[in-house]
Amino acid sequence: MPPPLRLQDLPPKAARFCLRVERFVRKDLGLDLNGKRLLVALSGGADSTALLYCLRYLAPRMRVDLLAAHVDHGLRPEAGQDAAFCRELCAALGMPLHEAQLDVSGLAKQSGTGIEEAGRQARYDFFQTVLAEQNADLLLTAHHLNDLAEDAIMRLIRGAGWPELAGMPAYDPQRNLLRPLLLTPGTNLREFLTMIGATWREDQSNTDPAFLRNRVRQDILPLFLRENPNFLESMARLWRIAELDRQFFLEFKTKLDIHYEAGRNQFSVPLDALLALHSAMRLRIYKALLDGLAPGQVLWKNLLRLDEAVHARRSGSRVQFPGGKQACLERSVLRFCAVS
Amino acid sequence: MPPPLRLQDLPPKAARFCLRVERFVRKDLGLDLNGKRLLVALSGGADSTALLYCLRYLAPRMRVDLLAAHVDHGLRPEAGQDAAFCRELCAALGMPLHEAQLDVSGLAKQSGTGIEEAGRQARYDFFQTVLAEQNADLLLTAHHLNDLAEDAIMRLIRGAGWPELAGMPAYDPQRNLLRPLLLTPGTNLREFLTMIGATWREDQSNTDPAFLRNRVRQDILPLFLRENPNFLESMARLWRIAELDRQFFLEFKTKLDIHYEAGRNQFSVPLDALLALHSAMRLRIYKALLDGLAPGQVLWKNLLRLDEAVHARRSGSRVQFPGGKQACLERSVLRFCAVS
Repeated sequence: MPPPLRLQDLPPKAARFCLRVERFVRKDLGLDLNGKRLLVALSGGADSTALLYCLRYLAPRMRVDLLAAHVDHGLRPEAGQDAAFCRELCAALGMPLHEAQLDVSGLAKQSGTGIEEAGRQARYDFFQTVLAEQNADLLLTAHHLNDLAEDAIMRLIRGAGWPELAGMPAYDPQRNLLRPLLLTPGTNLREFLTMIGATWREDQSNTDPAFLRNRVRQDILPLFLRENPNFLESMARLWRIAELDRQFFLEFKTKLDIHYEAGRNQFSVPLDALLALHSAMRLRIYKALLDGLAPGQVLWKNLLRLDEAVHARRSGSRVQFPGGKQACLERSVLRFCAVS
Repeated sequence: MPPPLRLQDLPPKAARFCLRVERFVRKDLGLDLNGKRLLVALSGGADSTALLYCLRYLAPRMRVDLLAAHVDHGLRPEAGQDAAFCRELCAALGMPLHEAQLDVSGLAKQSGTGIEEAGRQARYDFFQTVLAEQNADLLLTAHHLNDLAEDAIMRLIRGAGWPELAGMPAYDPQRNLLRPLLLTPGTNLREFLTMIGATWREDQSNTDPAFLRNRVRQDILPLFLRENPNFLESMARLWRIAELDRQFFLEFKTKLDIHYEAGRNQFSVPLDALLALHSAMRLRIYKALLDGLAPGQVLWKNLLRLDEAVHARRSGSRVQFPGGKQACLERSVLRFCAVS
């Protein structure tokens, strides 16, 4: 028997699962999706299949319009079957599917980056194209609480600051990206699929220990869970604290008289107003402005160096950031620009 | 040849090591130790031996008076030799040593806590007694950057919030505790001892995998260091960011009209002033007040629950915290008290 098509026909526990996802988006993220067109990134694995069903059940309540996109990376022998599975699933759920075949090995060789990074980039490029062509508002991905915990551990290892340390955002307006399952444990997704009688495709490519993410998944996260069986819950709480701090830091930014010159893609901030703030706040303002200029990860080492120069009012100082971004300290303003 | 007794007789690299420690205390922590009497916790291991030498070299410059304390836990067969080593070392450096013999196994059985916890408690009790009897100002321990990194990983595992997540403080005025080596990598301490020609006692008791700390030290930290050879540096930076945030959050607390009733050991805060602040700040104020009331670790889960009640102005609400502490929401004030 195929899974039911309406929320009211689900077993109560499965329905509650969906309603919690809706509440997370509406209450925790404060997003009203009414009238939006949502593109679901679908691989056919358990996570994205659960996301697709969940949204399908919520669509009439949330008044959203759904479409899906599937990418065949040309890496796995089962790729054709994965694509066929996605096609049948979308047909059964009555929604359009957009497909792409990518030569990720070729792209990786061309760009000189790793397979994982090349695949991620090509996938997101395709999704952005579909978003634009189909006039959709948001891309939805199935990242869940285990992914979030792995991400936080990776960020700790790589040396992130706060609040980035707590993991990826659930809503990224710059990339039109939404992760509605971010605080849902991975096991709940499989449970949900089993409860509604749905099937999915198993993906073995997530176990290659050549990738840090897989080493964290296989070696570190299980160790942490053994030490603290509530570790995932703790990471969800840490993420919530980080969200509060992120909002709090942003509030201060809006109080400053920040000037943006679109032609030069350049922000300037009055130095006196900056110096009236605490270092803790100044650092977050530098970061927000640099993130807003251009892509390129801002390193805390450089932020701390910049703040030393600001604190000492060393005009003429320049601090470089990845992605061709720089901060220039002048007599009365601090200027952020992207050198292209 | 025994190690030199004066800073100016050290190899330049060893002297620089000491001066960096001095600068950390004076500049980073903003502490002036001039005229203070410092009690060094000495086990005879590499870390505390390095701390003792380092302080001995700095004492004339910093104008501090030094004494040491050693605890024999009665657990290791070599305990007598460790004590003899400490006695000779302190005699050579011309400073008094206070010793205690503790039956930690017996104490652990009596209190029902683990050996590690009972030992830690008994050790600190003895150090506090010596502090009081000898009219000393601060207890100094040899915790270093590897300890800090392990501590941060353990805090992540156990579910700490921010800024506690970044690890133990370098200066804890409530316990008169100072950790001058907190941002110094452990290997630098052994290098320093080797450079000055000093010896130390090896302690094998730090490897028992029954303790989370030792599992983190042996299994997790090496993994993190393999992924990121600069991981220790990253943790020092994270700690600095946390310190800034800690100060920043404290500044807000001082702006509130907080009333303390010593007789009842109770704080009350006007609700309207609290509600004018962002949740991110309110949470830190609750935590600071609860930490100030009595010992007992404040859990973020409870802080978040309390903030929900405050935000909704649910007067009559009570939230319990470990250590007999509680928060009571009244019509116009939030009251924190310790029920003993």
